[in-house]
Amino acid sequence: MATEATADESEAPDAYQELLSNYRRIANVGNASGILSWDQQVMMPEGGTPARAQQLSTLSAVHHDLLVDDEVGDLLDELEGADLDEEQSAVVREVRRKYEREARVPTELVEEISSTSSEALSAWEEAKAEDDFETFEPYLEKLVDLKRQYAEHIDPDADPYEVLFQDYEPYVSLDRAETILEELKETLVPMIEEIRSSETPITTDAFEGTWDAEKQEELSRETLTLLGYDWDRGRLDVSSHPFTSGTQFDARVTTRFDEADPLSSLLSTVHEFGHANYQLGLPDEGYATPLGEARDLSVHESQSRLWENHVGRSEAFWELFLPTVKDHFPDASDVTAREAFESINQVYEDNLIRVEADELTYHLHIVIRFEIERALVSGDLDVSDVPETWNDKYEEYLGVRPETDAEGCLQDIHWSHGNFGYFPTYSLGSVMAAQLYETVEDELGDLDERTRNGDFADLHEWLRENVHQYGKRYETDDLVLEATGEEFTADAFTDYVTEKYGALYDLDSA
Amino acid sequence: MATEATADESEAPDAYQELLSNYRRIANVGNASGILSWDQQVMMPEGGTPARAQQLSTLSAVHHDLLVDDEVGDLLDELEGADLDEEQSAVVREVRRKYEREARVPTELVEEISSTSSEALSAWEEAKAEDDFETFEPYLEKLVDLKRQYAEHIDPDADPYEVLFQDYEPYVSLDRAETILEELKETLVPMIEEIRSSETPITTDAFEGTWDAEKQEELSRETLTLLGYDWDRGRLDVSSHPFTSGTQFDARVTTRFDEADPLSSLLSTVHEFGHANYQLGLPDEGYATPLGEARDLSVHESQSRLWENHVGRSEAFWELFLPTVKDHFPDASDVTAREAFESINQVYEDNLIRVEADELTYHLHIVIRFEIERALVSGDLDVSDVPETWNDKYEEYLGVRPETDAEGCLQDIHWSHGNFGYFPTYSLGSVMAAQLYETVEDELGDLDERTRNGDFADLHEWLRENVHQYGKRYETDDLVLEATGEEFTADAFTDYVTEKYGALYDLDSA
Repeated sequence: MATEATADESEAPDAYQELLSNYRRIANVGNASGILSWDQQVMMPEGGTPARAQQLSTLSAVHHDLLVDDEVGDLLDELEGADLDEEQSAVVREVRRKYEREARVPTELVEEISSTSSEALSAWEEAKAEDDFETFEPYLEKLVDLKRQYAEHIDPDADPYEVLFQDYEPYVSLDRAETILEELKETLVPMIEEIRSSETPITTDAFEGTWDAEKQEELSRETLTLLGYDWDRGRLDVSSHPFTSGTQFDARVTTRFDEADPLSSLLSTVHEFGHANYQLGLPDEGYATPLGEARDLSVHESQSRLWENHVGRSEAFWELFLPTVKDHFPDASDVTAREAFESINQVYEDNLIRVEADELTYHLHIVIRFEIERALVSGDLDVSDVPETWNDKYEEYLGVRPETDAEGCLQDIHWSHGNFGYFPTYSLGSVMAAQLYETVEDELGDLDERTRNGDFADLHEWLRENVHQYGKRYETDDLVLEATGEEFTADAFTDYVTEKYGALYDLDSA
Repeated sequence: MATEATADESEAPDAYQELLSNYRRIANVGNASGILSWDQQVMMPEGGTPARAQQLSTLSAVHHDLLVDDEVGDLLDELEGADLDEEQSAVVREVRRKYEREARVPTELVEEISSTSSEALSAWEEAKAEDDFETFEPYLEKLVDLKRQYAEHIDPDADPYEVLFQDYEPYVSLDRAETILEELKETLVPMIEEIRSSETPITTDAFEGTWDAEKQEELSRETLTLLGYDWDRGRLDVSSHPFTSGTQFDARVTTRFDEADPLSSLLSTVHEFGHANYQLGLPDEGYATPLGEARDLSVHESQSRLWENHVGRSEAFWELFLPTVKDHFPDASDVTAREAFESINQVYEDNLIRVEADELTYHLHIVIRFEIERALVSGDLDVSDVPETWNDKYEEYLGVRPETDAEGCLQDIHWSHGNFGYFPTYSLGSVMAAQLYETVEDELGDLDERTRNGDFADLHEWLRENVHQYGKRYETDDLVLEATGEEFTADAFTDYVTEKYGALYDLDSA
């Protein structure tokens, strides 16, 4: 089913060609901002901040002005009901969606959200450092209010939380997201409880000691090479938070190194590889059009989680990879693949911090944030009650209660940016990864055997054929349906964790 | 005479404030392009080229559209004859100049020049590799013609070469440039001839051998630190051609290393330091306005040449610096400061290549290009006659005749970009450097003694006070007059080289 993701302009109406040309300019301004942000986080000397802030805010204003230009609106009107093929229709759908979202919100509100976020970020940093929620509280309150207004402008008839959620994941309904998150909760809360009381001993400290950062970096480079990273279109650097940035022509990853914990950096590199690999799999000829852009956050996260969890956390991967680790770290010479596998998949007893969570508890961190931010936006929860609600939920779902807000509701940066509705995409990504991986296994047979042999070619080809090459051609639900033949559900994920962790911890329920 | 380079907006007419706000956006788009270009040359993986080309061309189009916007034209009309102070008038003068240059040239012509340059660049690369001028000839012909048309649009009554020259150096008249270049020729042709027949032996090979690139890089970093580079607002990287890029908040330098010639990289680092130091000396509060932007190419080059020639090529500098060199390169332990000084200032016998030239022959390379490109643009010289004219002039002025066009008229990239009028700014920069440095010595006394002690504070302060802080407030001629009390001439340069090379080669004429 290999179709070329070109928007065949020769047979399209003039208005379509003009729209595409407008969009290319808009996309290129956005991509330029991406380079500036990457540079800021990776290369820029500290003193460059004031100028960079002005440059980014200028590009953002230019991006906005180009997008809401009357010409774009007129072209969209003209293309209403035009005779377009599937790809052209997808392009128009995507441009229209962006245009409407951006045109409906008054500039003053956007600016107020932006300036409030800046202040909120400083307040959050201080609040977290001082463990003082009250410092952050008024800003969070204001952001909730502003974001409610924002949602109201975009669609006064919709659930405002759904509107916000769809800023990050436009083509998954809130209903579906909720159903999936509910299922995660129902599966994981008892499973984690059972694991906690399991007496099966597993290795938790295969990589104790100190691991030189420079050697970790070499190892990260070899990992990327092993997985098939295209170095002609990418690079690896260090930044304080790992991230991926770029396009199909130039998708760069960053990582960071913890000398006490080589696994975290390694898995983070594998995770970012998945993101970059998705970008690099988008069709060249669709560059700077919706057909060459990634389908939103859940699909993006499905690609990073697929490589991180289904490849990087598999025992087969450690059979393949451990000799390379030992080349760089002779201290690890006694570690077995099984021990590495167990260590990397251990479920933590007292996990309070999302970004340090294991593959299971992670999703309860997300469920808690989802429930709280939904209630905040709907007005069912007062901002002042967030800390207690947060702590109660941690106790209920995870069996641990934060002793401070710094390691409780102040731990994440997202809300200080006013990003309500972002968190669910992390879990949706994991769930989608499991569904995709299950399908690849159904179609290709044993993937572990290939992993053990370092043969990722078939997996790459499948992902490119069934996911990457389409860009934004399909809506998310349809993309999953096309790729897997099934609706997007948590079933595959549930099967995956039940089998894997049932075996690992010898659980009765498995 | 320390004035603050703020455009005091509170007392300015509304139109002025609006113009400034428009200009800030334009400047920030330009600065964003600067980051993308730096990244392309220093960081970007090779595969990123097609996307980067689109991003840069989009930003260039956005820059153009913002600049020639009717609103800018209307504001400029409104400010005609308005009651403005000196700084405000300078801002309006600079914006008007940019606006008019850009608005007068039809977009189609700009695009034709741009696409012809792309083709010409490929043709030039091939022609140079194959030593085949005819491959390049039709493109050069077309570029000369297009650039004549370009000049005609900007000012039909002016000498077209002057119009082109003023793209790079708007506030030096062509008359003055010609007078200076004539004086260089008159001084240098006989001086070089005399040097060639001098029997005074000077050291030419103080640094023979192989010099590890990594150690050269450490040395470059220490050189930058020694000269006072602000690392909080800068960085050093490697690129195939050394350059400086950035603003007062973030001015980055690059260098390259030749393991057979550590001096070239070192002097190149000192040269780029001068450029970066100028950027960093521009007032913070003038960022993204003409008051915080560098005064064009000659002044920029005066800053790089001042540090390269008057500091880096002085014997005093080598007395200071040689111990550091020896720390990194024990092989150099026997070299004396005098030997280093002589080696670095030797005048080459058979120098055909501009970028490898010494401080004297360099300017005859420029004079030759200046005379040829002027004659090309005026129509007095046919493109097909360029190789022979080139070779004749090399023989006449420098006593050497290129055997191939590859090391003759095809050596430089500039004409393939259509950059006619650029070369003179290199020599004007050296000449201005000498005039500035002479003034600093008159005002502060012996600078060599300070250099010997690594004390550059007074020189930094003088340059900041008299040059950097003004941005584009003064026109170039006035800036030189304000700083030195004299018109811009070649007198100081002539004195400087006569004294220095007279002593070095024991010349009768000195």
